Amino acid sequence: MPANQQIVLDNRPVGEATTSNFLLVESQTPALQDNQVLVRHHFLSLDPYMRGRMNENKSYAQPQPLGEVMIGGTVGEVVESRHPKFHAGDKVVGMGGWQHYSVVDGNAPGMLRKVDTTHVPLSHYLGAVGMPGVTAWYGLVKIIAPKAGETVTVSAASGAVGSAFGALAKARGCRVVGIAGGKDKCDYVVNELGFDACIDYKEHKDYLSLSKALRQECPNGIDGHFENVGGMVLDAVMLRTNAFARIAVCGMIAGYDGAPLPLTNPALILVNRMKIEGFIVSEHMEVWPEALQELGTLVATGKLRPRETVAQGLGAAPEAFLGLLKGKNFGKQLVKLI
Amino acid sequence: MPANQQIVLDNRPVGEATTSNFLLVESQTPALQDNQVLVRHHFLSLDPYMRGRMNENKSYAQPQPLGEVMIGGTVGEVVESRHPKFHAGDKVVGMGGWQHYSVVDGNAPGMLRKVDTTHVPLSHYLGAVGMPGVTAWYGLVKIIAPKAGETVTVSAASGAVGSAFGALAKARGCRVVGIAGGKDKCDYVVNELGFDACIDYKEHKDYLSLSKALRQECPNGIDGHFENVGGMVLDAVMLRTNAFARIAVCGMIAGYDGAPLPLTNPALILVNRMKIEGFIVSEHMEVWPEALQELGTLVATGKLRPRETVAQGLGAAPEAFLGLLKGKNFGKQLVKLI
Repeated sequence: MPANQQIVLDNRPVGEATTSNFLLVESQTPALQDNQVLVRHHFLSLDPYMRGRMNENKSYAQPQPLGEVMIGGTVGEVVESRHPKFHAGDKVVGMGGWQHYSVVDGNAPGMLRKVDTTHVPLSHYLGAVGMPGVTAWYGLVKIIAPKAGETVTVSAASGAVGSAFGALAKARGCRVVGIAGGKDKCDYVVNELGFDACIDYKEHKDYLSLSKALRQECPNGIDGHFENVGGMVLDAVMLRTNAFARIAVCGMIAGYDGAPLPLTNPALILVNRMKIEGFIVSEHMEVWPEALQELGTLVATGKLRPRETVAQGLGAAPEAFLGLLKGKNFGKQLVKLI
Repeated sequence: MPANQQIVLDNRPVGEATTSNFLLVESQTPALQDNQVLVRHHFLSLDPYMRGRMNENKSYAQPQPLGEVMIGGTVGEVVESRHPKFHAGDKVVGMGGWQHYSVVDGNAPGMLRKVDTTHVPLSHYLGAVGMPGVTAWYGLVKIIAPKAGETVTVSAASGAVGSAFGALAKARGCRVVGIAGGKDKCDYVVNELGFDACIDYKEHKDYLSLSKALRQECPNGIDGHFENVGGMVLDAVMLRTNAFARIAVCGMIAGYDGAPLPLTNPALILVNRMKIEGFIVSEHMEVWPEALQELGTLVATGKLRPRETVAQGLGAAPEAFLGLLKGKNFGKQLVKLI
């Protein structure tokens, strides 16, 4: 069996996460048992949720155990199989973690899925046609449930979730306004992703200023919002919501380090009879087939052209992950392993 | 036609509302036209929502116009009618406002409703078997939608909405824990209303302390919460919510005066995959018949014994209203006019 390299969580962050929280270790992949599959990872996905797992606090998921391989989505190729459904050469997506190889039980439901790379590049199964895409789909379709003509907004609009959200909302006849950090990202969101407008939150010193910009780009108010960030963006959006607005909460990245960020004006929940709902896409597996089909079609037909930021080699993963938390990536953050 | 007395909004509050915002005026009731009904009010309802109407700010409802009779629910008796459906002596509930008499268009949908006082005292149609009761019903049944065995909490538990909420939740097999201000109110909530427990928020200096008390009384966590108050109580409840908890937001009384009160830890919306929904019961008229039937039965069978605080005479209304905003009332706040 091949030699493996892994990145484990060595110690928990105190405040901000740093590269010293991680440790690169060498190991041997074990011999396969019946029904097991050996996968060589081509790409590792880096996602904001991983930061939450690094803390010891009770959250929706168990904390990442110390000394174990960091959790993470992976795409790759089967190199050896003792399961009848999988064969060497199969392209697969799974949760292989921050390492070169993983051994997977081929019978465990949802752990390993064969994918077709004829029309969709393998890496996109970690982004637009994977967990981030389905996340956007669930928030838009199941929580916001927009009508044609409504205005919807999304924070981190240039990212993997935000870009999929934009394409899905345009397909439903919505006005879509993104919020992103920096002129380059905003230009990409409008020119390449086809959003109706995008606001650079870095140009605004506080939520009141950002809210004024939102009023300009959302002249009919905001009917639905997909929140990837929290903090100032959510405060600004809430001020512009229409009656019966729906907010899907998928990320609160701004609050992961240090103290919780308050919501400035919760009375608007009542004033505008809003619905605010948090969700985790892995708890809604029933929607994945329908969502993946729509997302795959959007990518294959060129209606969704997701961008990727690709770090080279497993050793680059910690630095790339910390950059992601600071918004340094542009589109889906991946690590290329092969 | 009889002489009338009215209380009008004379000027808008700057910060805290005071009695000087109101003015008592005399007027003549006009002669009836076809299909109009003259009602003499027996009781006037005082409710927290009125404070919001006194401001000029955009809210879900139009502001109360200056110089016009203060809006408000009333029960009374028809004294003269030129509408075929109403007759002198009929007991009716409506939105007559802060005055002795009102002239109502008998054809306007929902403006005047005949009620039966055989088993339910007339005043209760302003409380448990009226708008506050239906408010509790909507939040519990349509937003929280509890399963038997779940734990639900409610702030302002001894009030008109809270007491109805408790009876409705007990009828569905829930553990019900109230939050109220002062030992007398808490004793009443447990001993007379049949809640499983009640916490005196005045004994707690901050939301963390209140949250500890909630943990003790809600050993299995909180699955649903009905928010009448906002601020510290909502912060404390959110810390104790279970996964997939539902919060119905009906009041943010603590924030009406002055600056908005922030929500301390909105990241919990994501961590616990919560749903938070604001609502106004008058926008859901379709549920009123079903809700009123259940509430009327609960009162008629003694399962809901609402308490009332009754101020005497129209001139006492402003002082009683300001007391309500400070939690000085005990149960439903009414003004007796006859």
